[in-house]
Amino acid sequence: MPTNRQIRLLRRPQGALTPDIFEMSAGEVPAPGPGEVLCRVRYISLDASNRAWLDPRPTYKPPVAVGGVMEGITVSEVVESNVEGLEVGDLVESFSGWQDYAAHPGTMVRKIPAGAPAEHAISVLGITGLTAYFGLLDIGKIVPGERVLISAAAGAVGSIAGQIAKLKGCTVIGSAGTDEKCRWLTEELGFDGAINYKTADLGAALGQHFPKGIDVYFDNVGGPMLQQALLRMRMRGRVVCCGAISSYDGQGGAGMRGIPELLVVKRLRMEGFIVMDYFSRRAEAEAALMGWLADGSITNRVDIIDGLEHAPEALIGLLTGTNIGKRLVQL
Amino acid sequence: MPTNRQIRLLRRPQGALTPDIFEMSAGEVPAPGPGEVLCRVRYISLDASNRAWLDPRPTYKPPVAVGGVMEGITVSEVVESNVEGLEVGDLVESFSGWQDYAAHPGTMVRKIPAGAPAEHAISVLGITGLTAYFGLLDIGKIVPGERVLISAAAGAVGSIAGQIAKLKGCTVIGSAGTDEKCRWLTEELGFDGAINYKTADLGAALGQHFPKGIDVYFDNVGGPMLQQALLRMRMRGRVVCCGAISSYDGQGGAGMRGIPELLVVKRLRMEGFIVMDYFSRRAEAEAALMGWLADGSITNRVDIIDGLEHAPEALIGLLTGTNIGKRLVQL
Repeated sequence: MPTNRQIRLLRRPQGALTPDIFEMSAGEVPAPGPGEVLCRVRYISLDASNRAWLDPRPTYKPPVAVGGVMEGITVSEVVESNVEGLEVGDLVESFSGWQDYAAHPGTMVRKIPAGAPAEHAISVLGITGLTAYFGLLDIGKIVPGERVLISAAAGAVGSIAGQIAKLKGCTVIGSAGTDEKCRWLTEELGFDGAINYKTADLGAALGQHFPKGIDVYFDNVGGPMLQQALLRMRMRGRVVCCGAISSYDGQGGAGMRGIPELLVVKRLRMEGFIVMDYFSRRAEAEAALMGWLADGSITNRVDIIDGLEHAPEALIGLLTGTNIGKRLVQL
Repeated sequence: MPTNRQIRLLRRPQGALTPDIFEMSAGEVPAPGPGEVLCRVRYISLDASNRAWLDPRPTYKPPVAVGGVMEGITVSEVVESNVEGLEVGDLVESFSGWQDYAAHPGTMVRKIPAGAPAEHAISVLGITGLTAYFGLLDIGKIVPGERVLISAAAGAVGSIAGQIAKLKGCTVIGSAGTDEKCRWLTEELGFDGAINYKTADLGAALGQHFPKGIDVYFDNVGGPMLQQALLRMRMRGRVVCCGAISSYDGQGGAGMRGIPELLVVKRLRMEGFIVMDYFSRRAEAEAALMGWLADGSITNRVDIIDGLEHAPEALIGLLTGTNIGKRLVQL
C-alpha cells in the first residue's frame, strides 16, 4: 500500500508566510466509500488566495484548520471509483489539497474537459481563467476601445485577463514586479504597455500610460496600486475587485483615501466577486477560452514546481512574485 | 430699479466653513438678452455638496469662482421674458445662485411641474428627491424584504430615500445626529429604527439593528459610518455612494480600511452617482414622487430660512446638521 504524503498547517502564520508553519507527514491512503472516488493528485494549483485562507477570519470559505491538510484546488487522476461515469484513469478537478491522495464524493469532482491537457485544466480552463473571463467581462463590462489596467499582470489571472481585453479591442497596460515580466507582457502577450511597480513612480506611470484616464482597472493587488488607479480612473470607470495580494501576507496596509469621494464625483463602480458565483455559466467561458487557446489567440504559461515537498516555498514565492504565469505543483 | 443683492465668495475656506468667506454686495439687475428670461429668485436650495464646490479641486462641476456669486439651485419667478413659452409669473427651476436676480437663456431654466408648490419643486421633486429615487432604485437596486441603512436620514435626501425604501417593502434603519431627528424618523416617517451616530457605538448599533447584515447602504456621509457599514454589509450588498458630508467641511478623515478585501470576500458593489446623469429619466421619478406625495405615502419636510442674508449661516448649520428635512432659503 502506498503512503499518502500530506502537508499540514501546524499553526497560523504571523505576518509574512514562513515554511515552518507547514509540516509534511505520512498518512493513510483513504478508502473511497460508496459514491466516492479515490483521487491521486497530479497538480496542485497555487493561488494568492491560499494565503488568505490561512488567517483565522473567514474569507469566502472557512479558514484552513490548524492541524489539517493544507487546502488547494487540484487536478487528480481517478485511481478507484465507486461512481458511475467516473472511470479509473479519468482526470478530474477536485479540491484535494496538498497531499497525494484524497477520497471525494462523485458530486464533488468534475471531469476535465475532453481534449484539455491537465495543465490547461488547472489554469486557463480552471479557476484562474474563469476568474479573468468573468471578472473582465461580467464585472468590468469592457467595451472595445476602452483603456484597461491589469495589476499582477504576469500572474495567472492577470495574464489571461490582459489577453482577453486585447481580444475585445481594448488598450491594455499591465503592472508587474520585474522588467522580465514586463517584457513578457509587451513582447509576447501583446500588452500595449507595462509598468514595473517596484521601480516606477506609480502615479506618474499611470499618468503617462493613461493620459485620458483608466476605464477599467482589473485589480489583483489592492494597496498603493489601487490607490493610484482610483485617482486616475475616468468618469464612469469600473474597478474589478478580484484580489488584494498586497495585503494578504501580513501587511495590513494604509487605509484607502478618497473613498467614497472619488466614487461619487467620478461615478465609479467598485465591485468584488468570487469566481465560484459564476460556476453555473462555466460552459460559456470554457468554450470561449478553449477556442482562443486552439487558434493561438491566447498564450497560457504555466510555471511548474516539481514535488509536493516544495509546495510551501512555491507558495511563499508566489506571494512575492517569483512566478510568471500560473504556478502549479506537480506530483 | 430694484437692486440685486448678491452673496459672493471672498476667498476659499480653510477647513470648516466660516461666514466671513462670504460678502453681500449690491449689483445691478441684469437685462435679459434675446432668448433669455429674467428670474427673481424665490427659494435657494442648500445642499451639502455646496461645500464641496468651494474647494479648489473640481468635483462634478468647476469650483465656485473666488469673487463670483455663490452658486446654488433655485426656484425663481420669471419677471421678464424674451422666450416663447415662458411667461411672466411662471415658476422655474434655475441655477441662479445666492442673489435676487439672474438672467438665463430659456434653455437653462425649466418650468416646475404643474400643481407642484415651489417648496416641493425645489426639494422632493427637485434634485434631492431625484437623488433619493435614482440612488436607491437604480444604483441600490433594492428588493422587497431587504435591510437598508440610510445615513443623514433626517436630511433632504435621506428622509425621502428612507420613505421610498419603506414603500418598496424594505426594513429601513436611519442614522442622524440628534434624538429629536431619530424620533422623527421612527415616529413620523415610519423608519424601523434609528441610530444617533453622535452618541451610539456605531459598530454595536449596526450589529443590533442588522443581525443578518446590511443589504443596501445609502451613504450620504462617508467616514466612520461607511467604515462600520462596510464591516456589516451582507453578501452581495450594495453601497450607494451618494455623498460624503463627513469629509466636505475640511476634515480629511482617515483612509477606509478593508478596501478592496471586504468587497472581494462579500462580493460587494460600491457605486457613485450624480443625479444629473439621470435627468433624461426625470419624468419617471417625478410622476412616482408626485403620486406618493398626493396620496400621503411620503412626507416632505422643509426647513425654511428667511432672508438671503442668512444663507451663509444656514449652509454652515446644514453641514453640522441643524436642519431637519430640506433646508431652503426663502427670498
